[in-house]
Amino acid sequence: MNDLARLSLNQETIKQWSLPELVEGCVKAGVPGVGLWREPVQAYGVEAAAHLVRDAGLTVTTLCRGGFFTAIDPAEQRRALNDNRAAIDEAAALGTDTLVLVSGGLPAGSRDLYGARERVADALALLAPYAAERGVRLAIEPLHPMYASDRCVVSTLAQALDLAERFPAGEVGVVVDTYHLWWDDTVGDQITRAGAAGRIASFQLADWITPLPEGVLLGRGQLGEGSVDLRWFRERVEAAGYDGPIEVEIFNPELWARDGAEVLTEIADRYRTHVL
Amino acid sequence: MNDLARLSLNQETIKQWSLPELVEGCVKAGVPGVGLWREPVQAYGVEAAAHLVRDAGLTVTTLCRGGFFTAIDPAEQRRALNDNRAAIDEAAALGTDTLVLVSGGLPAGSRDLYGARERVADALALLAPYAAERGVRLAIEPLHPMYASDRCVVSTLAQALDLAERFPAGEVGVVVDTYHLWWDDTVGDQITRAGAAGRIASFQLADWITPLPEGVLLGRGQLGEGSVDLRWFRERVEAAGYDGPIEVEIFNPELWARDGAEVLTEIADRYRTHVL
Repeated sequence: MNDLARLSLNQETIKQWSLPELVEGCVKAGVPGVGLWREPVQAYGVEAAAHLVRDAGLTVTTLCRGGFFTAIDPAEQRRALNDNRAAIDEAAALGTDTLVLVSGGLPAGSRDLYGARERVADALALLAPYAAERGVRLAIEPLHPMYASDRCVVSTLAQALDLAERFPAGEVGVVVDTYHLWWDDTVGDQITRAGAAGRIASFQLADWITPLPEGVLLGRGQLGEGSVDLRWFRERVEAAGYDGPIEVEIFNPELWARDGAEVLTEIADRYRTHVL
Repeated sequence: MNDLARLSLNQETIKQWSLPELVEGCVKAGVPGVGLWREPVQAYGVEAAAHLVRDAGLTVTTLCRGGFFTAIDPAEQRRALNDNRAAIDEAAALGTDTLVLVSGGLPAGSRDLYGARERVADALALLAPYAAERGVRLAIEPLHPMYASDRCVVSTLAQALDLAERFPAGEVGVVVDTYHLWWDDTVGDQITRAGAAGRIASFQLADWITPLPEGVLLGRGQLGEGSVDLRWFRERVEAAGYDGPIEVEIFNPELWARDGAEVLTEIADRYRTHVL
């Protein structure tokens, strides 16, 4: 029995690797899954990336990411919808069933969180059938509340589920990411709610460390070095019925400055120690 | 009718002012309330500060702050309790009925948010009667979830109320601070819950702006320049029955670099425009 059988490496975690290096590194380390990002995939070529990953026997667990639906301007809304249709096509081409969505923040000058969230729902209504026809499920990712104004107006798993539940479970799910949700004392119940309805589309890991850097984007912790009880989360999503990939997604320049293979070995070790 | 009748200036907002400058500045600007901090009050002398403020006809709306109850080490716990008893004494000497409490973060190496919150409750049980005997109410302040690990394990108004409601409303209340709570779609209902039980001990204002600075402590926005619908909050606490002071508490080095009187004039203007 391979104890890394469910592990997936999100590409951004070791972004110093090219796509071929990522594929080779995962195969060597026995990591069977990768989460990919649109920009490096597009740069390499979507079809070529799909072949590369498939030929290596790896599974694409998620494509990151679509979303950014909160614009008020109709032209911007149309651009976002078109861009998300392209993201869905790319996900289908890569053979992943999960497109991660970050909803977008408040438009400039707006203070209307409620209205922004409703525009997310409007966009989901237009995109979910398109995605479903291509075998792709949209996965709403709640981001930490510190991103609510400039990145993601969906801040809790409860909010993500409130949105997702307007649509069939096969079309819209949610992402459970420990970095964003660890502080919330209602998250256990919400994981149960998500799992019971088959809504957990992705389970992602990063640890929470401080001090946060300026801009608070690139300060995620390596597994086990921070405040998150990662094993509790893994057990909780499993108790809720989730047995899919466990994807490690850490944004941290210290990891990017190191040898990729060494970082991946460390991730696998810490996964065994702090997650399994 | 004085439209600033409920306005209070938290001392830290214009920390370039000495205590006498603060008192003089508020009197000149027609701002009737001040929120004080323990350290500058201690440096000036608690009794002297009490006289200074009282003689100027100002009200001390809050004393900031007690708390930091989450230590596991018994000696540290005792130190925290003793320090909080001193803070209660200082609040009583200053004639304020409200001591703001920041609960404290996770002890080093701990991932147990639940346990930390229970230690907060244990400390409240020991301190609330002591405070009540001195005419002081303990006010639990939920801080933004980005502070959950290193500063405050109480992240939502619901959590603060869950703690407060274990005690009589006259002994333990909550702080509604727009900076910490604005992102939460349940905050309106929780304000109603807090108001119905007479638990709103303080209402504080700051706006939310980005990018957040490193450490995320000193990036609060001047009223009206950020994402928070301040008027919605004011109307909501009032609808819940709160008619007490409205305290402006902004931590921002840009305000500290300016002339204090100019900053206070700006605050009063923005209070009229964005809050009333």
